Amino acid sequence: MTSPPQANGKAHHIAPLDASLLTIQRAETLKPIPEPGTYIFGSIKTDHMLIMTFDPVVGWSAPQIKPYGPLSLDPSSNCFQYCTNVFEGMKAILGPDGTPVLFRPEDNMRRLQSSAARMALPPFDEAALLACIKKLIMTEERWIPAPAGHSLYIRPTLIGTTPSIKVGASKHATLYALVTPVGPYFATATAGVSLLAVNEHVRSWPGGTGGFKLGLNYSPGFMPQQTAAALGYDQILWLIGENKLITEAGAMNFFAVVERDDGGLTIVTPPLDGTILPGIVRDSTLVLLRAHAADTSAKILNLPADKAVYVEERALSVNELAEWAKAGTLLECFGTGTAVLVVAIERIGDVVPDADGKVKKVRNIEMKAGKGLGPVGQAMWDKLLASKEGRDDFRGWAVRCE
Amino acid sequence: MTSPPQANGKAHHIAPLDASLLTIQRAETLKPIPEPGTYIFGSIKTDHMLIMTFDPVVGWSAPQIKPYGPLSLDPSSNCFQYCTNVFEGMKAILGPDGTPVLFRPEDNMRRLQSSAARMALPPFDEAALLACIKKLIMTEERWIPAPAGHSLYIRPTLIGTTPSIKVGASKHATLYALVTPVGPYFATATAGVSLLAVNEHVRSWPGGTGGFKLGLNYSPGFMPQQTAAALGYDQILWLIGENKLITEAGAMNFFAVVERDDGGLTIVTPPLDGTILPGIVRDSTLVLLRAHAADTSAKILNLPADKAVYVEERALSVNELAEWAKAGTLLECFGTGTAVLVVAIERIGDVVPDADGKVKKVRNIEMKAGKGLGPVGQAMWDKLLASKEGRDDFRGWAVRCE
Repeated sequence: MTSPPQANGKAHHIAPLDASLLTIQRAETLKPIPEPGTYIFGSIKTDHMLIMTFDPVVGWSAPQIKPYGPLSLDPSSNCFQYCTNVFEGMKAILGPDGTPVLFRPEDNMRRLQSSAARMALPPFDEAALLACIKKLIMTEERWIPAPAGHSLYIRPTLIGTTPSIKVGASKHATLYALVTPVGPYFATATAGVSLLAVNEHVRSWPGGTGGFKLGLNYSPGFMPQQTAAALGYDQILWLIGENKLITEAGAMNFFAVVERDDGGLTIVTPPLDGTILPGIVRDSTLVLLRAHAADTSAKILNLPADKAVYVEERALSVNELAEWAKAGTLLECFGTGTAVLVVAIERIGDVVPDADGKVKKVRNIEMKAGKGLGPVGQAMWDKLLASKEGRDDFRGWAVRCE
Repeated sequence: MTSPPQANGKAHHIAPLDASLLTIQRAETLKPIPEPGTYIFGSIKTDHMLIMTFDPVVGWSAPQIKPYGPLSLDPSSNCFQYCTNVFEGMKAILGPDGTPVLFRPEDNMRRLQSSAARMALPPFDEAALLACIKKLIMTEERWIPAPAGHSLYIRPTLIGTTPSIKVGASKHATLYALVTPVGPYFATATAGVSLLAVNEHVRSWPGGTGGFKLGLNYSPGFMPQQTAAALGYDQILWLIGENKLITEAGAMNFFAVVERDDGGLTIVTPPLDGTILPGIVRDSTLVLLRAHAADTSAKILNLPADKAVYVEERALSVNELAEWAKAGTLLECFGTGTAVLVVAIERIGDVVPDADGKVKKVRNIEMKAGKGLGPVGQAMWDKLLASKEGRDDFRGWAVRCE
């Protein structure tokens, strides 16, 4: 913990985030739970939230689970003025024995810590926060939807609350978590989503903040996203530079699967060079692919044993995708993320100059495997879902809330 | 105004921001006003604030001036989650006849509109907002400090308030303005500020949002700023790319003044290429310099009549500054912005490899004119201050609040 010296010269220890101090104040009346299938993603408020505050002299307050309600903040607060806002996305589902399970939640805590440090927000005890979040999930257990593809989405959020318009780090903060029941992220998930490749607007840059989960990485995409939607595309494929290198797909990590001359498959994804969110599903995908590639006979993934798999984490251009599609070897592309798990990319609109090099046209890159998940995306979906649900205890990724 | 079609097919006109609907609810007790010279920048809360809300169906609410107090917002609000937060900075001072004056406020309204559009936030009537802000200033007139170098800083802020964690544009918004009395921004303003040139972290990039006044352009600088402060520098000189091109200085625009072989002076500032805030003081500086250059005998600026002035808006590298300093021709550098008006840059720490190319060292670039404002910076300060205060009616830049 930070221990600023006091005026009298004695070290002054500020309070750490302490899960043992958690108090629970239950709502007097509980809300009716909407029918699964009727959800609008992210809009349903449950009965309770988790909240605690940080003061630079006192440290962390006792965490509270209390009835869901508004935050009351000074209009000059750093979070409104300078966007010192970081968050995480996690999902709880009911495991095989009915106990709620989380997927690799320690990784979310680690990433939140890293995001907080990048925004010069105060550090916190990761295990203590996770313990509080588990208590929140248990408090809201009745909100966890049962149907396949549904889950209780958890949104830990840390915001800077120092009430001053002075340009500089926030010394005060509020850390809270809300939960909301969710169904499948894309209405068209079984068919796949379409992407418009964009390099007029650039999501992130070397030396920028694209490698952290900051609120401020998202809103710059809203206006370009409206343009993409008007052209009939679901999401944006973010590019960078003249070589049109791919960074992310909407708010997902991007994977392409290419058929090789030797009959095997190469799976390519852009590297973590600081311009890309270090996705936990992305990492899980790479771990599973590499484990499968190392021993195809172990059947880590449900892929034909004679299909050798090669994984490449490297710079990837949309031009390469276009060439592979032209050559008939672009088997499939998919996106990964907490919200979607794995989603098929059915086509990619690539903006290219026409014959006379003047007018730009959108040329669609299509997938050999068609519009839905191809064999690799489907194998990933199956394995990741089983791991997430705790049906398959791959490396202890499913963590029970108890 | 946006006019979404209704379900019945009739056009549905939503309410515009209407200054004639403004209501004023006065605070029951007024706060004591602190002595000028004791202010901490940005922390003093006055008695009243201006506030209004936007709903996608209803439009803009009636604007209110009401007692200063907290905002109450749902924890899932878009502003906390995705940083749809934009703002402006303006200053009111008492003009020669005691009437409060603003400096080019229409330009602030235009820039706020442009920032709102970039964040996909709702548009507003610029003249109506300015009329409301003038009313707020008149309501808080007793807070305008009298001493030279002091002013009432105004912070219009627009935040996205749709209560959903869905990644996408905020359909709801809150627009508010607070005011706070301020003294000189930098404690060391008379001596000048020091800058550490940084290109490990990059503030903005082509295709990014650096050309808009968004809250999210600021917080990524807080952590690097702490590093710069630990090395003994006041602010960061933001660079981009291997050529170490200068974008901004802290939260200011940057100017360098170079002595020419022919006895004249060249003033260089980076161009508005989308990576740089289109500062209103920056623009005013360029307008004044160009007017002066066009007719030196008109004495627009208090500079020797035999010093011809040449203005260059072009890419500028910190390497050029280092070369000019070595050649003894780097007369001065200064920053411009609403908070500082004009401030001298006393030295620039440039991180360069040492002789063996391995260890990096900071080499200071120093100014021929010394640590305070040089002749051009001082002439700009004098003319801009007179224009701002309405003592000098250059192009009607000082606008009275009546």
